[in-house]
Formats: sequence, C-alpha cells, structure tokens
Amino acid sequence: MTEIQPRDLASAIRFLSIDAIERVGEGHPGTPLGAADTVTALFTRHLRFLAREPLWFDRDRFVASNGHGSMLLYALLHLSGYEAIGLDDIRRFRELGSPCEGHPEFNPGAGIETTTGPLGQGIANAAGMALAEAYLGRWLGPDLVDHRTYALVGDGCLQEGVGQEVISLAGHLGLGKLTFLWDDNRMTDDGAIDLALSDDMSARFRLSHWHVQEVDGHDIEAVSTALLLAKADPRPSMIRCTTVIGRGLPGVEGTRAAHSARIPPSLSRAAREALGWPHGPFEVPEPVLSAWRAAGRRGAPAFEAWSRRAAALDPERRRRLDRLREGRLPDGWEAPLRAFAARAAREGLSQSGIALSAELVDQVAEAIPEMLSGAPDLEGATQHKRRLKPFTADDPSGRYVHYGIREHAMGAMMNGMAAHGGVVPVGVTYLVFSDYLRPTLRLAAMMKLPVPFVFSHDSIGIGRNGPTHQPVEYLASLRAIPNMLVLRPADAVEAAECWEIALANRTGPSSLIFARQPLAAMRREAGENRSRQGAYVLAEAEGGARRATLLATGSEVAVAARARDLLQQEGVPTALVSMPSWELFERQDEAYRRAVLAPGSVRVAVEAAVRLGWDRYVGEAGGFVGMSGYGASGAEDDLFAHFGITPERVAEEVRRRL
Amino acid sequence: MTEIQPRDLASAIRFLSIDAIERVGEGHPGTPLGAADTVTALFTRHLRFLAREPLWFDRDRFVASNGHGSMLLYALLHLSGYEAIGLDDIRRFRELGSPCEGHPEFNPGAGIETTTGPLGQGIANAAGMALAEAYLGRWLGPDLVDHRTYALVGDGCLQEGVGQEVISLAGHLGLGKLTFLWDDNRMTDDGAIDLALSDDMSARFRLSHWHVQEVDGHDIEAVSTALLLAKADPRPSMIRCTTVIGRGLPGVEGTRAAHSARIPPSLSRAAREALGWPHGPFEVPEPVLSAWRAAGRRGAPAFEAWSRRAAALDPERRRRLDRLREGRLPDGWEAPLRAFAARAAREGLSQSGIALSAELVDQVAEAIPEMLSGAPDLEGATQHKRRLKPFTADDPSGRYVHYGIREHAMGAMMNGMAAHGGVVPVGVTYLVFSDYLRPTLRLAAMMKLPVPFVFSHDSIGIGRNGPTHQPVEYLASLRAIPNMLVLRPADAVEAAECWEIALANRTGPSSLIFARQPLAAMRREAGENRSRQGAYVLAEAEGGARRATLLATGSEVAVAARARDLLQQEGVPTALVSMPSWELFERQDEAYRRAVLAPGSVRVAVEAAVRLGWDRYVGEAGGFVGMSGYGASGAEDDLFAHFGITPERVAEEVRRRL
Repeated sequence: MTEIQPRDLASAIRFLSIDAIERVGEGHPGTPLGAADTVTALFTRHLRFLAREPLWFDRDRFVASNGHGSMLLYALLHLSGYEAIGLDDIRRFRELGSPCEGHPEFNPGAGIETTTGPLGQGIANAAGMALAEAYLGRWLGPDLVDHRTYALVGDGCLQEGVGQEVISLAGHLGLGKLTFLWDDNRMTDDGAIDLALSDDMSARFRLSHWHVQEVDGHDIEAVSTALLLAKADPRPSMIRCTTVIGRGLPGVEGTRAAHSARIPPSLSRAAREALGWPHGPFEVPEPVLSAWRAAGRRGAPAFEAWSRRAAALDPERRRRLDRLREGRLPDGWEAPLRAFAARAAREGLSQSGIALSAELVDQVAEAIPEMLSGAPDLEGATQHKRRLKPFTADDPSGRYVHYGIREHAMGAMMNGMAAHGGVVPVGVTYLVFSDYLRPTLRLAAMMKLPVPFVFSHDSIGIGRNGPTHQPVEYLASLRAIPNMLVLRPADAVEAAECWEIALANRTGPSSLIFARQPLAAMRREAGENRSRQGAYVLAEAEGGARRATLLATGSEVAVAARARDLLQQEGVPTALVSMPSWELFERQDEAYRRAVLAPGSVRVAVEAAVRLGWDRYVGEAGGFVGMSGYGASGAEDDLFAHFGITPERVAEEVRRRL
Repeated sequence: MTEIQPRDLASAIRFLSIDAIERVGEGHPGTPLGAADTVTALFTRHLRFLAREPLWFDRDRFVASNGHGSMLLYALLHLSGYEAIGLDDIRRFRELGSPCEGHPEFNPGAGIETTTGPLGQGIANAAGMALAEAYLGRWLGPDLVDHRTYALVGDGCLQEGVGQEVISLAGHLGLGKLTFLWDDNRMTDDGAIDLALSDDMSARFRLSHWHVQEVDGHDIEAVSTALLLAKADPRPSMIRCTTVIGRGLPGVEGTRAAHSARIPPSLSRAAREALGWPHGPFEVPEPVLSAWRAAGRRGAPAFEAWSRRAAALDPERRRRLDRLREGRLPDGWEAPLRAFAARAAREGLSQSGIALSAELVDQVAEAIPEMLSGAPDLEGATQHKRRLKPFTADDPSGRYVHYGIREHAMGAMMNGMAAHGGVVPVGVTYLVFSDYLRPTLRLAAMMKLPVPFVFSHDSIGIGRNGPTHQPVEYLASLRAIPNMLVLRPADAVEAAECWEIALANRTGPSSLIFARQPLAAMRREAGENRSRQGAYVLAEAEGGARRATLLATGSEVAVAARARDLLQQEGVPTALVSMPSWELFERQDEAYRRAVLAPGSVRVAVEAAVRLGWDRYVGEAGGFVGMSGYGASGAEDDLFAHFGITPERVAEEVRRRL
C-alpha cells in the first residue's frame, strides 16, 4: 500500500477504460483518460461517500455531466467498491444488459446519480441537487443534510444554452456547495475548440459570481488543493482543470481523434508502455485496488456518525426523515385536494384553469412541506407562488424559485431535485414554452423521476397573444413521450383529481395541462376519482341505445357537452366522454375501453389541437373537430368560431356520419 | 416641420401604442413606451430602409426580438410609411384579421422581418441574417449586399439559453454588422430583474468579443452617437440602453405593472398630460407624421443607387441576383440528385443513411452555391462538410458553419438566414438533439420558411450509445408540427428523392430523417420520384388478391420486406408499402390512398418508434411493430431482436389477424 502513488490510482481508471473500449470496439476514451487525474483527486480525498451505502441520504453527489465519457464513471464506481458495477459488467461495457451502458443511466444504487449524455443536462441536474440540498439543510437541519454536489464538466456542457443558463442562475442563487470540475482540454468532436468558441470562460463564471480557480488537471495535488479552497469559499466554485484529451494514448492524446477513438491492441500496448502499466487487460493490481477500495470506505466514519444522529432523532423528525428518504408523501396529503373537489362539485365552481391549479398547489403545499414550486418569470400569469417565500441566496428556506427566463434550466434543475430526493419539485410555464425544456421532459420520463410539470395557456383559448403563444401540436408531442403522464382536466373537479394522480405518480413525470380561460363546471359529483380511468362517460346517451359518442379533453369537454345537448334534442342518443389522460385510459381493460368508446357508435373527438393520435379512439370512420394548423391573434370566442371548434360543428360531424 | 423635436417622434410611437392597448384592453406597453426613444434614433437616423420598398434586397434588417412589445414595431412601421400597416390595422390591434397581431408575425412585405415572441429567437434570427449578409456580401459583392442587422433586445432574450449561445457564437464568428440595442429596463414580468439575475451583462458580451457601449436609452442623441460608433467598429455591437419601462405612464412607469399593464382612459389621459400630447386617440399631428414619413424615405437615394447598380449588372450576375431575390434555385439543381438516384437504383447502393445524405449534399452544394451547411459539433459523425470551407470571421465566403455545441442557436440562425433570403441553410444534428432546437422547428413551420433540417441517428439502430441517443418519440413529435414536412427515406433512391422534395419545398421546413446504419437497396428503378406521393406500393402482393399490407418507413422497410417474403412463401399475398412521408400521403386523393392502404387487407405497420399516429393507417384492427418505451445500450442487431422489430414478429402480427 505505501508505494502506491496517486498516479497509479489514475492509471487504474485509464486502463479499465482503455480495455473496455478496446474490447467493444467503440466508446469515448477522451474524457476517461483526460480527466482520470482530476477525478482521482476528488474521489480519493474529498468526495464524501461510502461505496457500500450508495443511497446514504447525506452523501455528496457526483455527476459526470459529459456522459459520453461514461467509462470514467464506471471505472470510478467499480474501483471504489460499488457492488453493482462489477468487473464483468465493465468487461461487458456497451453490451445489452450491462449496467455499463453507452452513457450513464440513472441508477443511484449503483452510484449513478443521473442520466447524462445530452450535454448541459448534467450540470443543470447538479445545480438542482445543490438547491435541494440547500433547502433540506435549512429545513431538516445541517445535522441531517450537509453535503456537496460535484460535476465533471466538458466543453459541450458549457457551450449549450442550458449550461449558460445554469451558470447564471446557480451564481445568482448562491449555491455555494456546488462545484464544477471543468475538464478543459480545448478539443471537441469537430476539432480544436477555437473552431467555435473564443469566450473567456473563466470570466464567464466570474461575472455570475462564481469562485474560479485554474489548475493543471493532471496535477492531483493541485486539484486537491483547489477542492479544499472551493469548500472554503461560500460561492459556487468552478475549477478549470487544464488537461490533455485522451492522455496516455501515444500519438492520439491531445488530438481530435481522441474524443471517440477506437483503440486497437497496438494502441493499448503503447499506452501501457507509455504509462508504465505492465498489467493485463482488466487487471487491477491488488495494492492499487486496495487503495481504491479504501477510498470507497473513507466516508464510513461520517456515515456512521450520521446514522447515529438519525437514530437518535425524536420520533417526529425520525419519521419525517424516513419518509423523505423513501420518497413518501406525508399522510393525508390528498385531503385538501379531495376537499377541494367536493366543494367544486357542490358549488359548480368555474374558474380559470391555471388559477385552479394555483389554488390546488397553494393548498397542497401546506400539506407537503417538501414541495418546491417555481416558474420562469411567469409568476403573475400562473400564480403558483401565493404564500410561498422565494428561495434566495440569503434564505434557502424559501420554497418558490424565480428561475428567470430560463425554462430549460428549470426543467433540468427539477430533474436534479427529484434525482436528489427529499423534495417534490413543481415547475410551471406556458405550454408553448414546454418546447424550451423538452429535452428535460424526455430525461425525466427515462429516469422515471416523479416530477409534476404544469403547463398553462393550453390552446387558442389564450386569445390575442397569437399563434406563437397558442399550442396546437403540444398535446400530441407530449403524448408521444414514453412514460410521460399527460393530464388535461376539464373542470375544477378533474383538476383536483389530476393533481392527486400527478403527485401519486412516483415512477415518472406528469404534464398537467391547464387552460388560461375559465373551465365550466362539468362534474357535479366528486366521490370517486374518475380521472384515474383516463376516460369515462361523463353523460350517458339518453332516450335509447347510444348512437353517438363525443370524446373531448380539457376546455373542449364543455364544447362537446353543448353538442351533445343539440344532438339529444334532435333525438340522437349521445354519450359524452371526458378523456383527461390517454395513458391512463390505455391501462384499463378492454371491456372498459369498449364500454367507454362504444366502437359501434358514431364517434367524434373534440380537442383544440392537432388530430394526430385521435384516430385510435374514433376509428377510421370517425370525426375530429380541432386544429389543422396554427392559431391566430384575436378574441377567444372569435378564434373558436373561426377555427370551427363549436358545438354546431361537432353536431354536424356526427350527423354526417349517422 | 422645423419645430418637430425627436421627442415628438418618440411620442407618436408611445401614443399609438397607448391608444391601441387601451382600445383592445390588453397588450404590453412596457417595451413600446420604454424603448420608443431608442428606436426613434435608429429609424430616423441610421436604419437604411425605404418604406415603400419593403423587400429591397439590400435593406438593413430590424428585428424586434422582444416580440411582446409588438405595438412598438407596428407604430414604427405605420409612422414611417409601410402601406401594409394602416391606421385602421393599428386600431384593430390584436383583433382577428389585423396584421397587428399580439406578437409580430413574419411578413416582410409589411416590414416584419421575423416572427418573435418566444424569447431569444429574434436575436438568434438576427445573427442568422447577419451571417447570410456576410456570406452574400462576399459572394455577390458589396455593391449588391452591404447592409446591417439590428435587433431590439429585452432581458428575456439575454437570459434564455439560446440568447447566450448566440452572444457567444456571433462574437466568435465576428458578425460585425450585427447590432443589439438592449432595452435595459431592469424589470421583468416577475418584478425587479435582480430576483433572478445578477450577471454583469456588459461583461458577458465583452468576453465574447463584442463592442459594448452603455447609454441613456431615452437620450436620442446619445443612442444615435452610439449607433455611429457601432457602425465604425468591426465587432458585433451591443448598445446597452438604460430605460424606464413603460416610460410616460404616470404611476406605472418603472414598475413591474408596466410590463403588461392595461391602460384605462384615466391613465392614457394622465400620460397625455405628462408628455404634453394634446392629441386625440390615434391622432398623429401632421408635422410629426410628415417627419416620420420623411424618415421612411431616407433610404431612397441609396435604394435608387443600388437599383441602378443592379440594372447595370452583366446578364449573368443579374440573373443570379434576380434568382436569389425570388428564392429560386439555379436551373438544373435537381440533376445531381436524379443522377445519384439512377446510379443507386442501378447499382443497388447500400450505405449508411447519413452518409447518403452527406454525399447528396456534397453534390447538390456544387449546384446550389447559396447553400450553407453546418452542424453543432457533429461534423465527423454527419459528414456534411466535405469539400466546403468553414465560414469564419476572417473568411465569410466559407459555406460550412461550425455552430459549436449549440443546437438551439443553429436552428434559430437557420431560420434567420431563410428569412433574410438569398441563402439556403442546411443544418444537421442527431435526431435526439432536435428537441434542443425544437422551438425553432415550430417557428420555421409557422413562418413557412424553406429550411431543410437533417436529423441523423434516427432509432435504436445507432446501437451502443444507448437510450439517451436513441429517438423513439421523435417521428411522432415532428409529424405533430403543422407545416413540417417529415421525410424518412428507406434507401439511397428515396434519399435522393426526399432531398429533391425538401429543396423544392419553398413554403415550409422539412425534416430529413436518416439512419446511421446502412440502408439496404430497396428500389431498383428511379425514373419517377415516387416519394412525392408520400407512400407507394413498393412490392405488390403476388399470387392472388392482396390479403396483407405492410407499411414501413426508413430502415424498417427492409424489415418489412423480409416479412413480406416470409408471408408470400406461406401463400399470403402481401403488399409492401414504403411511406417516407405522411404529410405528402395525406395530400393524395382518396382513391390513391385507398389503393395503397387497401383497407380490406390485414395491415401492420413497422417503424422503430412509438405507435402514436399509425392507427390512422392500420385501422383499429391493425397491428404495429415498433417501440413502446426507451431503447437500450447494445449492438444494433441485439437491440432489434430485443425489442422484437424483426421480420418474424411482423409476419406473426399478420398471421394473428388473417
């Protein structure tokens, strides 16, 4: 043990990476080889973790934001003793079934804190983790939550807009326990970084009030000292680690080719020669492995002290901590939602859709103190702040985040908060701006993170702001995302039901879609959460066997209801189906689905959006009343008339088919 | 005329804005009132334009990037004499049918150079315009193209990631004729800007090599001097114009409320009092209007000189100029594509999908010298540079843009280039990263801009990079965008056909979707562009009346073809339909569509993506073989087998339904 040098530890990372990439014939050696020294400094001396307790609530988080360098992370995790990443898994790097996938996939039990690959996401996730930590540290107390978040960052993460947003916002919010290690290798996939960048990046961080240091990223002592200073500084820290991409691959290091070079046997032999690593493929000499495993146990005393503190908590704090660790909401959290639904049904409450959501969130936020709300500069229009204090650099106990005009950072930070655990992030913006954060919706769904996104101003019903602000394709494009639960409530009762569904959904994100305009009262009973079935018969056909079925969502349920009245008056027994969620409806059994859809009846769907997907429910002979192109600027009523989304038109579509 | 002061000119903007917003009961007075002085300096003294010739090819471009302040633009255009924006149109601000929509909608004949509203897009469009100008100025000569691009910029544009990307890239590319006028009013919708921002924004621009000036935005002389200095400096310029939001609304100016305040009659009266404007609603006193109209004619001598130069061109340059102004491609541009298709059909060419696109673009770029290609740091993987030189600050004659790792800026700059006219932008990235630029796809479609986007690496077929890099929902989400032409060719012949369709599509964007893996040769004849029909019978059922129809796109046409072989061997007459474009298929008449789909047959669709939308073509009894969730990391063949996208499975789905 005594003879082991830090550079041997880094070599172990390099050669596991080289061997794995050589074996499968592809991968990205540039980062694992270039940043091996930098992360060795972090993992062996600073990162507070315990490999055998990967889910320790108060562990430091490490995010490999430049996910293409995934072998770096797998090597680190294997070497430091995470059981879930065995040597055989590394041998099977990039093979189907190996946890060592092409890019890191969220797997906290294996030490993989978030999914990375799409650039910029990881550092924004890390900022979200740091925000969650700051809030929890204040709320639960620093005896339970007091840890740091580190991210290894590549050039791509910093060029991406979402990365730039996060630099700005993390500095503004004073997330002082966040540290970026920038692997500054001046090389991108296209070649030298100055092909596309000439910014002074250190200055970029400084003007957003970051603590900036510049070190030789291959000098483990220098990196270690910088990490010490970062911890001592109250600001978020960026450590610019100058490195050589692909360090250790003779003839390739420092070149564009290193980014995603194949490694033939001759090159891995040459690397062994160059770095003095006489060991065979996937062989880590015992003293090196021992040193790494010792690093993976460095956190044991801290973990044990923390566990003792947790065990000694008074019962109430203990219950709360356990609940948060397990991601359970407080008992009775549904009560305000159900009470609201009952009152709305009783009173026939009609109100702006987004205002309904705001009122529901206001009430449920009382019941769920770990809920953190926020919006990208749309507090006034979406009203989800209400009684919440802002989260600020000075007061991290605030529960409303003013994200600024940075939708993408909001989405990615929400994902980071959810991946961190212990908090329930809620973010609100206009539905049209969901495209700005769409990459984060996909990642939340892929990571199965319980994140409720609220999207308001959901159709031409917004009126005069015009087509740029009128979603038409968004319901379809959200429904296209696997594991995204899309909920578009028709009225106040369904709004409460859908919020309950969204908060209860612990295996993926939800998109709650709200109209800006008032939603008429459709449901006058609220005993059972009918939205859970995804679609249900809101009004059955009367006066005979059902001849027509109208399907609608959200604000168009009221349009369909008036069409049903017209048809019933004409003697056409017509059922009205409210369909707040396609995904939930697809989970029902076939008998139920047939009973709702009545395939023998004439079916017409009504939704102020594009038709894509509706053919599944209306059949080839069915009709659709909605949008076929973009909206226009005008009064709400004028627009619905102009685009023909009217009860008369719906009734006509039915008549034509009878 | 002699008594007219610059402040009277600005007052005319303010009161048209106040009156229009008062009348309709909503709007955003903050910007029109706050920035009135700043833009008065620009329009009356510097902007080179001629209101009666809005389409003058060599006019300066002005982009109102903070589109919510749309009345500012309408007031400017009306006052300076654009015929398409009459006083009645302004009276009908935000009414259905008025060209004065809630946000500016692309309408160059009316002086609206691009659609703005989603923040950050406008300044990125402006950068694209400046890039187009730089290229054309070098290629056509400064006698024909030598103009500047100005953008009025709000805080939102600068906070958005896409804005940050553009600051960085425009500085790097040295777009010296680009000038931003930042309406620095320190107020956002949520309130004071320091709620969410504490960056030193001047420093932000400087570190990206911009020329930065700071002036009082209400001092017309100071702004004018700054504009002079901006023109003299070779760098892109940012003029920080300190202003008071809603300037002129007593009790409201300078507050959060000014951003989108309603204006009751009492407030407009108070404003008239405060600014000394005794005129009635929508009344512009003659001397003020005359001064504005004179400003709108300031460009006449320059226009006439330019027209004389254009008229005196030798015939070849003249033809080229006319062609570019009219957005026509050179005669015979299709020839290389057709020759390629013929050769591919003859030789049975099988090649990587994206390499096919690269080869086609390489050839067609010879025929279309105004084609500007580029990618966000994926030159190596997508190969669309080939023989093109890079566009750089030193050499704007280059035709390949290294956008850096900035997909969003790429998309928005491409839109700006297309809106500018005279160039054909082509941008290439992985299909999964289309989400990063998705807001720009929508705007291209809404603006009807002829922009070909190339999206590569289109399915699990990419293999080991794993689920983050494997699109599954993207075909559906692109098909959801109205006026987006989605093209997914099956082989080399269709690749050439689809490129021809995309370049011929002058009324909207196209998404050309390519596999990374080789596409087998499916078509062995290439006389007629069959992709134009959207879907066609590639192989008719044999040995009897058609009993089954297999529908597929892209790389899955080969899977379906093998399934057809299995079924034919079993005696099931089966047709194979290749369906490169749903949108084009929808344009065919019903008889053709029925002949292709054969609704009486068993129909099964095959696409390595989600099912959403396919029910329209396979019917309620139809089958689908594709993806229902995210992919995985592994070898391509293992993945297709793992997810059951195989000929055997397709045949089985048919058999079950026979």
